[in-house]
Amino acid sequence: MTVSPLAPASFPSLPEIGGVRFAAMAAGVRYASRTDVMLAELAEGSTVAGTFTRSSTRSAAVLDCQAKNGGPAKGRAAIVVNSGNSNAFTGKAGAASVAAICEATAKVLDIDPARVFTSSTGVIGEPMPHDRIIAKLPDLRHALDGTAIAAAARAIMTTDTFPKGSAAEINVGGKTVRIAGIAKGSGMIAPDMATMLVYIFTDAKIGHTALQGLLSAMTDRTFNCITVDSDTSTSDTLIMGATGASGVDVEGNADFAAALEGVMLDLALQVVRDGEGATKFVEIQVTGAKSDADAKRVGLSVANSPLVKTAIAGQDANWGRIVAAVGKSGAEADRDRLSIRFGDITVARDGFRDPDYSEDETSAYMKRQELVIGIDLGIGGGTSTVWTCDLTHRYIDINADYRS
Amino acid sequence: MTVSPLAPASFPSLPEIGGVRFAAMAAGVRYASRTDVMLAELAEGSTVAGTFTRSSTRSAAVLDCQAKNGGPAKGRAAIVVNSGNSNAFTGKAGAASVAAICEATAKVLDIDPARVFTSSTGVIGEPMPHDRIIAKLPDLRHALDGTAIAAAARAIMTTDTFPKGSAAEINVGGKTVRIAGIAKGSGMIAPDMATMLVYIFTDAKIGHTALQGLLSAMTDRTFNCITVDSDTSTSDTLIMGATGASGVDVEGNADFAAALEGVMLDLALQVVRDGEGATKFVEIQVTGAKSDADAKRVGLSVANSPLVKTAIAGQDANWGRIVAAVGKSGAEADRDRLSIRFGDITVARDGFRDPDYSEDETSAYMKRQELVIGIDLGIGGGTSTVWTCDLTHRYIDINADYRS
Repeated sequence: MTVSPLAPASFPSLPEIGGVRFAAMAAGVRYASRTDVMLAELAEGSTVAGTFTRSSTRSAAVLDCQAKNGGPAKGRAAIVVNSGNSNAFTGKAGAASVAAICEATAKVLDIDPARVFTSSTGVIGEPMPHDRIIAKLPDLRHALDGTAIAAAARAIMTTDTFPKGSAAEINVGGKTVRIAGIAKGSGMIAPDMATMLVYIFTDAKIGHTALQGLLSAMTDRTFNCITVDSDTSTSDTLIMGATGASGVDVEGNADFAAALEGVMLDLALQVVRDGEGATKFVEIQVTGAKSDADAKRVGLSVANSPLVKTAIAGQDANWGRIVAAVGKSGAEADRDRLSIRFGDITVARDGFRDPDYSEDETSAYMKRQELVIGIDLGIGGGTSTVWTCDLTHRYIDINADYRS
Repeated sequence: MTVSPLAPASFPSLPEIGGVRFAAMAAGVRYASRTDVMLAELAEGSTVAGTFTRSSTRSAAVLDCQAKNGGPAKGRAAIVVNSGNSNAFTGKAGAASVAAICEATAKVLDIDPARVFTSSTGVIGEPMPHDRIIAKLPDLRHALDGTAIAAAARAIMTTDTFPKGSAAEINVGGKTVRIAGIAKGSGMIAPDMATMLVYIFTDAKIGHTALQGLLSAMTDRTFNCITVDSDTSTSDTLIMGATGASGVDVEGNADFAAALEGVMLDLALQVVRDGEGATKFVEIQVTGAKSDADAKRVGLSVANSPLVKTAIAGQDANWGRIVAAVGKSGAEADRDRLSIRFGDITVARDGFRDPDYSEDETSAYMKRQELVIGIDLGIGGGTSTVWTCDLTHRYIDINADYRS
C-alpha cells in the first residue's frame, strides 16, 4: 500500500497522558498476523464522553457506547477497538458480541462493564468472531503501557495508508495539561472497514457534562466539516477520556477548549489527507451566506460534488461546476451576487466571469497539491469552512471490488 | 465516441405530430460543423407547459421559460435550443442573449416573443455567442418539417452517445391521439454541457392548467427519480407542447395520462442508460417505508452512494454499503426490520444476513447488465422506485478535464 501523497512527513511525537495505558495485538479477527485489537485503560475517576454517527443503521457497538455515555463516572474505564469486522447489521448476535467483549474486559481488568466502551471497524454484515478478541484480553492487560499510543494508532488502521495522531499542551497556572489523540479512516471510504474512529485522551480534570458539551460543539466544526465521498458510516465514533492526573480543573478554560479543538481539527484533516485515492487536499471557505448553517450546506454540497472533485483531480479550474453545486445545495443563494476564487485568484464575481480572469494564472494554481476554494454568496454574514479531497481513478480501483 | 452498452438497439420510429414542425442546423456555437441548434414551431392554439430545475443558480433561459410558462396561449409558439454553451452564470449578458434570441425568433416566425421558449446546453460561465444562432434562424424557418423530430433529437446531443426518443398513441372515441418526445443528457453528467433537456409534443387538446398539473406530478415520478451522479444541473428543462390538431380533448382522460407518463419514463430511463461511463442499469425498488417521500429519500441515497455505485461496477453484492446508505438517508428506518434483495435473491432480512445466502448465486446475478435492488424497510406502506447506473473509471476519464 503506497502512502498517500498528502500524508504528513511522520507520525507526531505524542506525549504520555497520566492515567492512560495502551496495548495492541494481533487477534486474527479477519486476517492473520495483523495487529487488529487495541485496549486503552483509563485511571479511576476518569471522565469519558463521546460523539457518534447519526446513521439510523448504526452498529451494535455504537448503540452500546451511546447507552453508556454519561453514566456513573466511577472506577477505571476501558476502550476496546478491533479492526477487520464492523459488527454492523449483525442483529441480536451483534449486540451479544458487544456484551461478551464488555463483560470479558470488565472481568480481566476488574472494572464495571458499564465503563467499557467498544468500537469495531471492518466489513459490514458478517458475524463477529468476538471470541478471538476475548482470548487476547489477558495478554493485552499485561502489555498495558503509558507510552504505547502510537501502537494503538496503528492497531486501528485498516486500509489507512498512515497512522493519525495529534497532541497539544497548555499551561494552566504553572501546571501542564496534555491532550493526545489518534484517529483512523475517512468516512466510509476505506475498503475493508466502514468507520472513522477517534480516541482522544487528556490528563485534565473535567466533568462529563462539560466535556460532552465541548466535544459536541467541536465535532460540528471539525469532523462534521470533512467529507471524502459523502458516504456516512454506520460506526463513526469519537471517544475522549479525561483522567484528571494533571490535577488541573479545565472547566470553562478557553485555552483548553482551543487546544482540544486544534487536536480534533488536526486529526480530522489527517483523515481527509488519507482519503481514498486522494491527490489534492481542498479547503472550501464559504462566506456571505444567510446563516452559518447555509454556509456549511453550500460547502458540503461543493465538497461532495463528483463533478467538482473530478475537475480538481484533472487540475481544471471549473468554476461552472461550483456554481451548479451551490445551486443544488438548498441554501439561499443569488446567482448574481456569487463570487468564486481559487486561492487569491478571483475567477468569477457578481454572477459572471471576472473581467481580469487569466486561464494561465488559474491553471498554474490548480497544479498545487493544496487548494483553497473561496465562495462568497454576498447575501449575509454566515461562514463555514469544510475540507475534502479529489476523486480519482484510485477511488474506483479501491472500491469496485473490495469484498472478495 | 463509443455508444453506451446500455443503449437501445435503435432510435424509435416517432410519429408525426399534427401542428409541430422541426428543423436542425450547425450554427457553430462552440464547434464548427456540428448540428447544434434546433427549432420547433407549434401551430396556433397550442398549449405549452414545462417543468424546470430547482437550482438556485439556474440559467437565464430557464428563468425566462419559467416567467413565460402559463402565459396567454394565443398564436403559434416556438422552441429554440442550442448546444455548446449553457448561457448559465452569465449575469445580465445572459438574460440579454435570451431576449435577443426570442425577439429574433419571434420576428422570423411572425409570432409573439412571449411564446418563444429557449434552452441552452453546454459549458457554464462562458459568454453566449447568440448572434451565431440568430444568423441561422431564417434558414431554420425554411427547413421546418413535420417529420424532422429525429434530426432535432440529434441536434440537442452534446456528449450523449445516442439520441433519445419515445412515442405513444392512444385511441379516444375512434380518434388517434399521438405523443412524441425527445431528450438529451443525464443530470449534470455530460462533459461539455450541464443539462438534461426534454421536449414532448402531442396533437391532443388540453389546457395549460391541466397539462401543467400532469407534467408536474409525472416529473416527480419519472425524471426526478433518476440520478447518474447526484449533480443537479443549472439548466434542466422539460417543455411540452399540445397542438390540439387531433381534435381530441384529453382533459381528465386516464389513458392519455398513462401514455404520457410512459413516454416520460421511457425518456428518463434512456437518460440513465446514457449515464457517463455506465455499464450497469440499476432499478432500486423501495417498499415498507413510513411514507412515499421517505421511500424516495432512501432510494436516492442508495442510488447516489459512490460506494454502492462502485460496488455495482465491480459486480460485488455489497449489501453492507446499501445498509449504510439507508442509514444516512435521513428517512426513518429500523436496522432490525430491514431486508435487502438483489433481483429475487434475498441477501439480508430482519437486520441480518439471510441464513440461506449463497455467494455464488448472488455473484452470478451481479454479472447481469440490468439489476434490481429491493429494499424493504418493514415499517410502513411507503414505496418508491428510482433508477441509476454504476460509477466506473470512464466517468473519471470524461470529467477530470473537460474544459480544455
